[in-house]
Amino acid sequence: MSKKNWASHRQAKDEKMQRVAPLLEGKFAKTSDVVKILERLLNSGDKVVLEGDNQKQASFLSKALASVDPEKVHDLHMIMSSISRPEHLDIFEDGIASKMDFSFAGPQSTRVSQMIADGSLKIGDIHTYLELYARLFIDLIPNVVLVAADKADKDGNLYTGYNTEETPVIVESAAFKDGIVIVQTNEVVDKLPRVDIPGDWVDVVIPADEPYQLEPLFTRDPQHITETQILMGMLAIRGIYEKHKVQSVNHGVGYNTAAIELLLPTYGEQLGLKGKIVPNWEINPTPTLIPAIESGWVQSVHSFGGEVGMEKYIAARPDVFFVGKDGTMRSNRAFGQMAGQYALDMFVGSTLQIDKYGNSSTVTEGRLSGFGGAPNMGSNPTGRRHSTPAWQSLKPDDNPLGKGQKLVVQMVETYGANKRPVFVDKLDAVEVRKEAKLANVPIMIYSEDTTHIVTEEGIAYLYKTSSMAERQAAIAAIAGVTPLGMTSDTATLNDLRNRGIVALPEDLGVRRTDAKRSLLAAQNMSDLIEWSKGLYNPPAKFRSWS
Amino acid sequence: MSKKNWASHRQAKDEKMQRVAPLLEGKFAKTSDVVKILERLLNSGDKVVLEGDNQKQASFLSKALASVDPEKVHDLHMIMSSISRPEHLDIFEDGIASKMDFSFAGPQSTRVSQMIADGSLKIGDIHTYLELYARLFIDLIPNVVLVAADKADKDGNLYTGYNTEETPVIVESAAFKDGIVIVQTNEVVDKLPRVDIPGDWVDVVIPADEPYQLEPLFTRDPQHITETQILMGMLAIRGIYEKHKVQSVNHGVGYNTAAIELLLPTYGEQLGLKGKIVPNWEINPTPTLIPAIESGWVQSVHSFGGEVGMEKYIAARPDVFFVGKDGTMRSNRAFGQMAGQYALDMFVGSTLQIDKYGNSSTVTEGRLSGFGGAPNMGSNPTGRRHSTPAWQSLKPDDNPLGKGQKLVVQMVETYGANKRPVFVDKLDAVEVRKEAKLANVPIMIYSEDTTHIVTEEGIAYLYKTSSMAERQAAIAAIAGVTPLGMTSDTATLNDLRNRGIVALPEDLGVRRTDAKRSLLAAQNMSDLIEWSKGLYNPPAKFRSWS
Repeated sequence: MSKKNWASHRQAKDEKMQRVAPLLEGKFAKTSDVVKILERLLNSGDKVVLEGDNQKQASFLSKALASVDPEKVHDLHMIMSSISRPEHLDIFEDGIASKMDFSFAGPQSTRVSQMIADGSLKIGDIHTYLELYARLFIDLIPNVVLVAADKADKDGNLYTGYNTEETPVIVESAAFKDGIVIVQTNEVVDKLPRVDIPGDWVDVVIPADEPYQLEPLFTRDPQHITETQILMGMLAIRGIYEKHKVQSVNHGVGYNTAAIELLLPTYGEQLGLKGKIVPNWEINPTPTLIPAIESGWVQSVHSFGGEVGMEKYIAARPDVFFVGKDGTMRSNRAFGQMAGQYALDMFVGSTLQIDKYGNSSTVTEGRLSGFGGAPNMGSNPTGRRHSTPAWQSLKPDDNPLGKGQKLVVQMVETYGANKRPVFVDKLDAVEVRKEAKLANVPIMIYSEDTTHIVTEEGIAYLYKTSSMAERQAAIAAIAGVTPLGMTSDTATLNDLRNRGIVALPEDLGVRRTDAKRSLLAAQNMSDLIEWSKGLYNPPAKFRSWS
Repeated sequence: MSKKNWASHRQAKDEKMQRVAPLLEGKFAKTSDVVKILERLLNSGDKVVLEGDNQKQASFLSKALASVDPEKVHDLHMIMSSISRPEHLDIFEDGIASKMDFSFAGPQSTRVSQMIADGSLKIGDIHTYLELYARLFIDLIPNVVLVAADKADKDGNLYTGYNTEETPVIVESAAFKDGIVIVQTNEVVDKLPRVDIPGDWVDVVIPADEPYQLEPLFTRDPQHITETQILMGMLAIRGIYEKHKVQSVNHGVGYNTAAIELLLPTYGEQLGLKGKIVPNWEINPTPTLIPAIESGWVQSVHSFGGEVGMEKYIAARPDVFFVGKDGTMRSNRAFGQMAGQYALDMFVGSTLQIDKYGNSSTVTEGRLSGFGGAPNMGSNPTGRRHSTPAWQSLKPDDNPLGKGQKLVVQMVETYGANKRPVFVDKLDAVEVRKEAKLANVPIMIYSEDTTHIVTEEGIAYLYKTSSMAERQAAIAAIAGVTPLGMTSDTATLNDLRNRGIVALPEDLGVRRTDAKRSLLAAQNMSDLIEWSKGLYNPPAKFRSWS
């Protein structure tokens, strides 16, 4: 009887490492050898994680991957948080890769749709970030991971600094299962500012020809915030933040939530809410949060990733941000998503379409944008039974065994930026599902999880509805002059208002005429810099005021 | 105008570190100075994480904490996964601590109830593991953490080996927010087998007077598995594992699931299921899984923690387990809980009470045992929309926007070990809630998340029920001769069977007379050792056969 080999992964790794041994000095390879290194360390069919979330990209390694010989390396199974760069899809057209598991496809969403339709891209699954990271330990255990560091020392210890993000969770999944960890680094140094990932866990380090790509994705210029968004922000502060005594929150990226951040030190202060709401945040370090921080509204911020330009400001505010002994932030996308899903009172986001049932999606005609992290934050973790006032305030009265719920808030103008109604009879996602042959309709946030919808008309308190019909009526009541909104009538509206299921501005003591841009704590980027005492340094593309 | 101090936490840390400087050489303190060290590094009112989950305990530090002078250190806010040791509660009686956030209180559950009732223990919240870890980054950010390592080197790099468990997530929450990281270590060495936690993140290392406490919590001796449990295991394999083509699973600790593990290589093999079900596991390395591993059923196992006696076996099976370059396992409780909640097809657990609605709890009269991790695994993550066959097989037929669901299975004998009915009209947890003044009834797994219940009578497919009345009827139909079971009648049972909502053994092709102990792949601990080729080395208390 032949003896079973219980270390076949280790053996495969050893064989690969022997192939590259002539190209390595210690753990280090030459920049110019990167393609050769990949050709020798990748076996066809391997599961490969390529780091690239919506901010940081292992761009040197992704470019090299697109240059390997498809005769030597083909049919890789790629696992990626984000499909962001052209070569992320080029490798599929070239046959280097054939299957993809991913979370988010912002900039490449149209091409993703087309490639699925024409069969050049086979999808494993479209995940949320948390699902993707979790499955790296279960059924998507990688053979090779390609990640990006700021600095490496001669032992392969890594400094990932502000943008630690998803690097640790990816590396751990490979380092402890005989996978190969390949790192591109911006710089090689004698002594790291700090160790973010032990060198023990790293197999090969390649100095990159240029720093990894980094997107300032979470920066919103206050000058583009409209008075409609300010009105909605005032409604949310009064009708949700104050009403439910919300303590911990994640804001999705957008002008609606930027408006709220800039209203806390002005409108929030007028209402006497300082010290009473939202001291604790899970959020990227968005510049529009600076005035609230400077005014003493914010006790703590944990972040998924960094944000370009915020480095010095964060370093000067260690009581608020997570900062290492070296003085730079440590972000952590895996723990951030975990906290976003499980530890918060509330998620506030925006979306492109909401159907009459209250399901929402950013997947619209021809664009398969994926999920990212919003569904982690924007879902109710049913295993949790948290006792904060906000959570408890959503507890049903009529069920002695009942528990509270996470607040999941969607803020949308009834007509979107493209002048098409946000409220629709049927989500475009239903058609996209058919075209892309997905197992599920790519809904971003389900109706069952959505507790509040805010529009410029008012707030629908969906968690108070007791039937789907009532839920639909509540949505229609705040859907304005969209076709869905036109189905609502005054009698129904007034009944819903009387029962506290819908609130109009006047019900909340908010005057539409008060919703002025002058109410924002900062009017533009220059004001944010001033609030930051010169510590915030916006990227060039946001310096349009000067 | 006075200048705001934005580094008050850092300053507090610096002040504390100056106080202990005379007692330190580098990062190292003397074993005999441990109480002095704690008295100088803890300020009254500090938030303190004391490592101690259901396996590994920072027992040297917890004993020292109980010896500090309450005049110097009092009213600590303790944050602990598990209340396991007497001194964990002694510190509250002595005034050293006054508030507690925790997850699990197995061995101390009766005393916890009493101390809450008499006011000597103030509870922040009772968490699941995932919630506790997540909140370390949001609103329970610690000032000081007390953790346990196997080995430390002179720079304070830590080796946590098999029992890495929750150490990394605890350390990260403090190290990057100006908290103080204090480590007890079993050993100080020149060169670590590997680095699990960088020395950068560590402030003080204290060699312990004895190795940290470690409990072999997940070991079940096959000789105690009954034929009733074997019958239930056969039902589950046919009626759930096979039916839903389950690929990834977590088993709760217990004889019911141990039976399933030992039936896979025998009964499962007879059914031709090898290679078709459960290749991927998130589970502690339970010895009863050895025969399934040796028979080729298991592709991968990621673990929350280690299990005493399994060290050599795991080291020899790196294709299956997560093992570092040094040859020892790496466990990770935070990532394990994340995967358990978010990445799996199925959770199978057991419980002490199930009410007529299908809610279950292990909190029974006078015992406030907490939640641990079961509610993470045993809940349906609503933000997920996974496309595996198992998940999709629970998708409702009548909703085009519907999605699948995690399989959450409860396996119980209708009468528990204490001869009292498991199925009850009202959970004891309802009374415990009142006595302990909890915000919520301490339900372990909610009816809404429970998709299947298995008893010796049959299986209730709760996910197929369309009303609470139907759900109650399905539960009663498999509740045997308990008072709840007696409310079921033959007509209802047959109707439920015809509609596939209930299955009896004969409906699944399982013969009660086949449920024999001889069907188990291992009869006792000796057989497990033999299966392991002598690699498994059970702790002394399980060596009763010799």
